Amino acid sequence: MSRPIGVFDSGVGGLTVLSALRHRFPSEDFVYLGDTARLPYGTKSATTVQRYAINAAAHLEGHEIKLLVVACNTASSYALDALASSASIPVVGVVEPGVRAAIATGSSRIGVIGTEGTIRSGAYQRALSDRAAAVEVKAMACPLLVPLAEEGWGDHPITDQVASTYLAPLLEWRVETVILGCTHYPLLRPSLQRVVGEDVRLVDSASAVADMVGVDHHGLVSPDERQGAVRIELTDASDRFLRITRAILGRDPEELEVVDIDQA
Amino acid sequence: MSRPIGVFDSGVGGLTVLSALRHRFPSEDFVYLGDTARLPYGTKSATTVQRYAINAAAHLEGHEIKLLVVACNTASSYALDALASSASIPVVGVVEPGVRAAIATGSSRIGVIGTEGTIRSGAYQRALSDRAAAVEVKAMACPLLVPLAEEGWGDHPITDQVASTYLAPLLEWRVETVILGCTHYPLLRPSLQRVVGEDVRLVDSASAVADMVGVDHHGLVSPDERQGAVRIELTDASDRFLRITRAILGRDPEELEVVDIDQA
Repeated sequence: MSRPIGVFDSGVGGLTVLSALRHRFPSEDFVYLGDTARLPYGTKSATTVQRYAINAAAHLEGHEIKLLVVACNTASSYALDALASSASIPVVGVVEPGVRAAIATGSSRIGVIGTEGTIRSGAYQRALSDRAAAVEVKAMACPLLVPLAEEGWGDHPITDQVASTYLAPLLEWRVETVILGCTHYPLLRPSLQRVVGEDVRLVDSASAVADMVGVDHHGLVSPDERQGAVRIELTDASDRFLRITRAILGRDPEELEVVDIDQA
Repeated sequence: MSRPIGVFDSGVGGLTVLSALRHRFPSEDFVYLGDTARLPYGTKSATTVQRYAINAAAHLEGHEIKLLVVACNTASSYALDALASSASIPVVGVVEPGVRAAIATGSSRIGVIGTEGTIRSGAYQRALSDRAAAVEVKAMACPLLVPLAEEGWGDHPITDQVASTYLAPLLEWRVETVILGCTHYPLLRPSLQRVVGEDVRLVDSASAVADMVGVDHHGLVSPDERQGAVRIELTDASDRFLRITRAILGRDPEELEVVDIDQA
């Protein structure tokens, strides 16, 4: 029997990554865990995020996954090393794929936007300068963008104004490419693209992760004729999260269960 | 030895309630618990909020508190009955005091704003109609106001616009008094007052709670000459929460500890 791929996020934003992975590897089985009872991770300390991420990974390993995709930028930034050394399977985060995709644009001025935790960790900044020393990098925490995305205001004049406020220093600096360093941000793409203008490229990690899984883990994923199954687990299922889940998937999830992982 | 009063909130917004209580009862000792590692409660389900609140109350009971003040509107709305029946001490929430204060204004059209959880629970709406059947009530969830308060945008043009969007139906209905049904909202008072205009009264539960503790629990609190101590415990202490703590208290906290209550 084929083992599933585990995908983990603090909430439901990581479903954008799951969708990209499913599109690329339709015959794989997936188990998605969204830690909605404890989200957001982006405002919390490294210690707490590491504890939550290790707890979540242990829960997913209980599903006999063959690969863990950490579809949460804050967890990828703060906890990827800890996860990689504690897990018995390969672990892929979202930072490295986003960085590879941004460098592939050939831009010399790259901006990164994300949660306070992601930006404060310096993970994107380090990965960019390790891979492309000549590239200039400017990073900006944008704490209000996740609540705006969750409110369904992805294409709203107030979101344009908030994004303008946050992105003003990047635009003044004449940024060429902006990495959307948070899985919620693709939901804000209409507003963000208006604010940065058509000449600035927005790189989101969802498809970049699928690319990297395809390249680096070729042996793990083997397309064939069968249609893979998807199981979604959330630690809290308020109407709000179910509404956002539907908005991202474009339909009701096939199989959704509420799980308690606190004691795991 | 005098036993302390316990004050509990999902985060640091409840420090507005703690400040009002300290001001009223300066000789009392207080233990404040902010569940910053699992906040916000406002977007989560009743089941999760009840579990967290009972867990937090059990932790505070370990401090030998003589009275528990639930300084969180969502926990007061979803979990007060469960807390009152599980705790061995008196439990005071923020809904009842806010409702009393709003009715005391004599207004016939009262609005309530709060988190999705608080509004969805119907706790304010029920308490108002139980106590004053003739009063008309309109309630409105305002999910973006907490993130705006935490961003420090309490007096910002974007907050004015967001508040205008949320409050438009209340203003059209010619609301006379608005209950600020979330402990973060006093931080937004400048914006909120501008949006509703000078003729609409804003009632916040912080001072209303202190009033009610004074009236209903007279035997518990006994002012004397000593200066009470305050201990603040947070389940996560990111820079963000410490910054907001300082903003609310107007100074650094005297005694602050990070505690792990997950396994309690």
